[in-house]
Order: sequence, then C-alpha cells, then structure tokens
Amino acid sequence: MKVEKDLHMSTGDGANSYAANSRIQKRALLMTKPVLQKAIQDMYTSSISSRSTVVVADLGCSSGPNTLLVVDEVMSTLRDCAREEETTDEDDRRSMQVQFFLNDLPGNDFNLVFRSLQQLQDFDVEEEDETVALPCYVAGLPGSYYRRLFPCQSVHLFHSSYSLMWRSKVPDDLSNGTYLNEENVYIGKTTPPSVVKLFQEQFQKDFKLFLTLRCKELVGGGRMVLTFLGRKTEEMLTHGEVGSMYELFAKALQCLVQKGLVEKEKMNSFNLPYYAPSVDEVKALIEEELFDIENIRLFENNWDPLDDSDSDVVLDCASSGRNVANKSIRAVMEPLIINHFGEAILDELFMLFAAMVAKYLEIRKAKYPVIVVSLKKVRH
Amino acid sequence: MKVEKDLHMSTGDGANSYAANSRIQKRALLMTKPVLQKAIQDMYTSSISSRSTVVVADLGCSSGPNTLLVVDEVMSTLRDCAREEETTDEDDRRSMQVQFFLNDLPGNDFNLVFRSLQQLQDFDVEEEDETVALPCYVAGLPGSYYRRLFPCQSVHLFHSSYSLMWRSKVPDDLSNGTYLNEENVYIGKTTPPSVVKLFQEQFQKDFKLFLTLRCKELVGGGRMVLTFLGRKTEEMLTHGEVGSMYELFAKALQCLVQKGLVEKEKMNSFNLPYYAPSVDEVKALIEEELFDIENIRLFENNWDPLDDSDSDVVLDCASSGRNVANKSIRAVMEPLIINHFGEAILDELFMLFAAMVAKYLEIRKAKYPVIVVSLKKVRH
Repeated sequence: MKVEKDLHMSTGDGANSYAANSRIQKRALLMTKPVLQKAIQDMYTSSISSRSTVVVADLGCSSGPNTLLVVDEVMSTLRDCAREEETTDEDDRRSMQVQFFLNDLPGNDFNLVFRSLQQLQDFDVEEEDETVALPCYVAGLPGSYYRRLFPCQSVHLFHSSYSLMWRSKVPDDLSNGTYLNEENVYIGKTTPPSVVKLFQEQFQKDFKLFLTLRCKELVGGGRMVLTFLGRKTEEMLTHGEVGSMYELFAKALQCLVQKGLVEKEKMNSFNLPYYAPSVDEVKALIEEELFDIENIRLFENNWDPLDDSDSDVVLDCASSGRNVANKSIRAVMEPLIINHFGEAILDELFMLFAAMVAKYLEIRKAKYPVIVVSLKKVRH
Repeated sequence: MKVEKDLHMSTGDGANSYAANSRIQKRALLMTKPVLQKAIQDMYTSSISSRSTVVVADLGCSSGPNTLLVVDEVMSTLRDCAREEETTDEDDRRSMQVQFFLNDLPGNDFNLVFRSLQQLQDFDVEEEDETVALPCYVAGLPGSYYRRLFPCQSVHLFHSSYSLMWRSKVPDDLSNGTYLNEENVYIGKTTPPSVVKLFQEQFQKDFKLFLTLRCKELVGGGRMVLTFLGRKTEEMLTHGEVGSMYELFAKALQCLVQKGLVEKEKMNSFNLPYYAPSVDEVKALIEEELFDIENIRLFENNWDPLDDSDSDVVLDCASSGRNVANKSIRAVMEPLIINHFGEAILDELFMLFAAMVAKYLEIRKAKYPVIVVSLKKVRH
C-alpha cells in the first residue's frame, strides 16, 4: 500500500461516497466549532498590525459537504471578527482578504470539491452589499501533510479534522513482513507487543514531523486546531474505542478467509496506516519551545452516524450496525479494501461487519474518543 | 451555455481526451518558450530585493502533459536564474521558494493534474542534492479568470497559453436570440455585421476586464505572458484562419441538420464564447498606465497537430483532416457539443468535419495565427 496514492475517501457523491456518508465527521466539526472559533478570534486579534492577506489551510479536507462547512465556518467567524473590530480605519478592514487552501492526498476527489465551491461563490456575491465582504480565494493543494506544503511563515491558521489519525505509512517492519499482526488490521487484543510498539513509533515519528513542518510554515503567533481520533486511556485496548471497531472489521475479513474468499496471506499483509493516541501521548510530543497548548480535550462521538443522542441506549442494534458499516466506515475504507483485496468482496465484507457491530452494540453503546487540540506557534 | 460550468477540455487521459490530444498547444508552448524565459529572467532580476516567495499562476492550465510542461519550464528557468545569480549570500538564494497556482474553470480535470504532479515531486527529490533546490508548492485554483482569483499584489508572473481566445460568455444578444448568426457558430463569411460587432464587443469587454483584474493581483513590476489564437489581418475573414476552421465546423453541423439528426433551432442557438483578435486590437486595449508591452508578435501554428514542418505542402489531406478533427478539435469541442446537442452526434459530426477539413487542405495548407504578448506591470 502506498499511502500517498491509495489513501482517500470514497470519491464522487453517489450512495457509497464519502460525500454522502460523512455525518460522524460533520458532528465532530460541530462539536469542535467553539475551539476553532476561539483560535480564529485570537489569531485575528493578534495579527491586526501585520495582516492584509490571511492564509488558512484545511489539512485532509476530503470532499463533500464537510469541506464546504469548514470554509464556511472559518469565513463566517472571520467576518464576525471584522464586523466587531473597532477600527477607525475602514480601508484597513476592507483591504483584508483570505486565501484558503484545501489540502488532501492526490487521490482525493478535488473535482467534486471544486465544482461545489460555486455554492460559496454565490454566497460571496450575496454578501457583496454588506459592509464586510472579506474576499476569499479558495485553492486546492494536493499532497501529504507529512511533507512541506507551504512556503516558510506563510500560513496563519491550520485546521484539520478527522484526518490526523492516518499515518504516513504502515510501519516498515509490518509491511515488509518482519512482524505479523495475528490477523488484526490495527492494534487488537491479540496484537503482539512488538507490533504495538511499531504502530506507536510510527505515530511518534509522524506526529513530530507534522508539528515541525507546520511550525516552519506558520507565521509567528499562528494557530493550529487539530481534531483526530484518540484513546481514552493509556491502556491500548478499551471497550468502545476505535481499536474495537477495527477488531470487528478484522473479524469480518477473517470470516471471508474462512469462506475461501480472501487468501490468508492477503489478510496477513493488510494493516492500516493508523494510530489513535491518548491525550498524554499527544502532549508529550508537543515541544514547548515551538507551540503553546491553548486547549486540549477529549470528547466522544457515537459510532452510529445517525444517532445524535447523548443517551447510553442503542434502540435498534441491527439498524445501528448497518449505519456504522454502510453509512460511515465503508466510505472511509472502500478505496483501501479495493486496492488490497479487489472489489468483489465489498458487499459481503460490509454485510458481515454490520452484523458484528450489531452484536457488539447489544452489550454497550459504542463511542469514538476524539481529541481536539488548539496550538499557538511561539513567537521568537 | 454557462461558460463557467460547461467550458472545459475533454477530461481524463483516454483516446479522445485533451491530455492525449494537445499537441498543437504543446507546439505553441515550445514556440513561445523564449518569450516566457525572458519574462521570468527579467522578473527574477527586478524582484531580487523583495522576493522570498515567488508566486506564479498558469491561467487556463487544462490537464495533461502540457500542464506539467509549463510548471517544468518555469521552474527550470527559475533554477537557471538562481544558479547564475552572483550572490555572496547563499542563504538568501536558498530561502527563495515558489508557489505555483494552476488555474482553470471548475469543470477542468484537476484530479488528473493532481495525480500527475507526482512526476514533478519525484523530480524535486532528485534535485535535492544540488545547490539550487528551489522548493515549488503547486496548488490548483478553480475559477474564471474573468473574476478575481488572487489577493491584491500577490502574484509575480501570470502565464496563459491557448486559453484567452475563450470569452466569459456568448454575447447576450446572440444567446438570447435577439440576433441570429446565419448558421455559423463563430464569425463566418455569412455572419451579419451586427453579430460580428457583438463578438468584438464581448472580446473588448472581457480582455479589458482581464487586464484590470490581473493588474490588481500583480506586484509592481510583475510579468504576464499571454498566448492566444488571433487574426493575421484586420479583415474579419482570411483563408487559413481560425474563422475558417469554425466555418467548416458549422458546415459539418449543418449537414447533420439536413440529415435530420440536429434540430435547426438547436443549431441556430449554438454559438461559441470565442474571439480571435488582431495584434492591433490587442494593443489598443492595453493601457499604458497599467502595463508596458515588452514584446508582442504573431506566429503561425499548423492546423494538423502531427505536422511539425515549416513547408507549405500537405502530404496527405485525408489523414491531415482526420488529425485536425479527431486529434485536436474534438478534445476541445466535445464537452460543449455534448452539453448542447447530446452525445449521439459526436462520431458522425467529427467524421464529416474531418472530410471537410481534408477538402479545404487540398487547396492550401492551413495555419492558426497565434499572438504572444509579454507585459510588465508599471510600478507606481
């Protein structure tokens, strides 16, 4: 698996696409909205003297309504800031402009994103009569955020939601077969400690690299709001976590091996470029001389994309299982599955997975722990 | 026809795609290379004191090998400039970086462009050991260049090749049926003078708008190299010109009307958002207080994309006719034809068109006149 080539959400806007099945990610965006707003307000206030063009980048923007939602949220917060600003100099306020970069890997469906941007442009035109027009120029930026994406000190705000749990690659010693993951696709109960360590080390290396690269690209005082799946405790495995979800997914694949639909070797060589860290693991990697942590917290997001309730009861496990499998995970996993196993197994795999999730939900309502961290680049 | 939605080259990289059929456009890029190089060198020299990030934009970038060729040409010229520069300050040279924007309408196949950028990135990696690495960050920028695309004074170099003969729309009084074009799709011998005037006025309005917008976006002293199809003389119709090509194309459509495959009303309501101006018309619109004309000239490009010769002889008219129709014009016109007439007529239309071009070539070798103009924004 070549992450830069093969990793992307399901393209287009059809029934199985990410665009049509990203309600969980939308919920996370709504839950982290106050953190993002605060970061934008602080960035706006602290950059008053120097700004004319504010540069914003959404890393792992994907495609579909969530992509536009991020642009919309950032822009309306910036417009609010401009409106509330007590400036005697109207020209100064008017001259501000925003350059917005939507970043994702080259396999992302940028065509879909670009065609839907028309909706934002129409919005701009309607706004033109108001006192605060705030022009926004939106570009697409293909490339891995584990490489440099921007010139030095050119970005004011980085945002990334539901993307940074993806690693730059499957750990080498796992992808080259030196170690085996005992029929798991991520860290599961039967994963050997040596393999757990490989996943952890890949995370540490990637996350440190990510922070170093973004630090170079941010202006002094620039902000970064990162939301990604995490772990509730330091324990590697806890019920209701992301790990459990991938354990069920691995079990569905194992069923296909038993049925002779998937070769055992294929299964053994399939691991995810993924890691969900704990809050402490994240904190440990953020160097104080580079960033101030303005805010870090963990919240939970229901597995079922259609269940917005806070209650701990699953009303219809079978239906919830299907929602998790077909209206959420499939849009994320399909391209990786097709790339590794081929298209033929898709329907059966997600049918089996739905049934396993349903059974799992009979015992407990499952939630993904999500970490949101807001960082400020230290001025030197 | 909504130009911003419907106008784009044939997508993908299949047999009929623009990517596989843009040899004429490539030839124009090679012929204008010295003009572009000169503009880059001048821009490089004059911006030494102020630059750290050089911003370059290719307007109407389309997709396929030509898109990469432009990035490659600009980058290698900039690398040559950096290499030749006599600077005692190695750090100063090293800190320079390039942000490259590829612009086209939202219907352009940006996915194809982004996936092929990998070839450039690989090139970058190979270069890393050399003294002049010059990092290049490539973004895609969807939108019409008849609107603002960039923040004020943020671009150092605009480039546009084989795109600016496209207008922002078909003139209103033609698209709303106030005037009719006598079975032409562009200006033809039977086009009424009132309609010729509509096409001309649309060009004047669009080109003036284009220059005003880009002037706002360019830094003082910034450069602009524009290549587009033109007219050899002030006369509206001359043999061998773009107009003749579209007259033949209109005749092929008329044949389909006679055969009952296209409705007469459909044909009458089809006009191109297009205008090929003369050098004098272009000069007249460039305001001296905004731009200095560094260079303007007209050259010719064979109709047959596979004929690179300077000779005036067509060796095989039938084969050349097919080349013009199927290996050049089809990739440009197909999306517009599908949008207006549907897909069913495509093969027959281009077969008829090929035959007509072949007959036309029996009398003369046909060439497109092409204008290249290099502009420098006046410093205030």
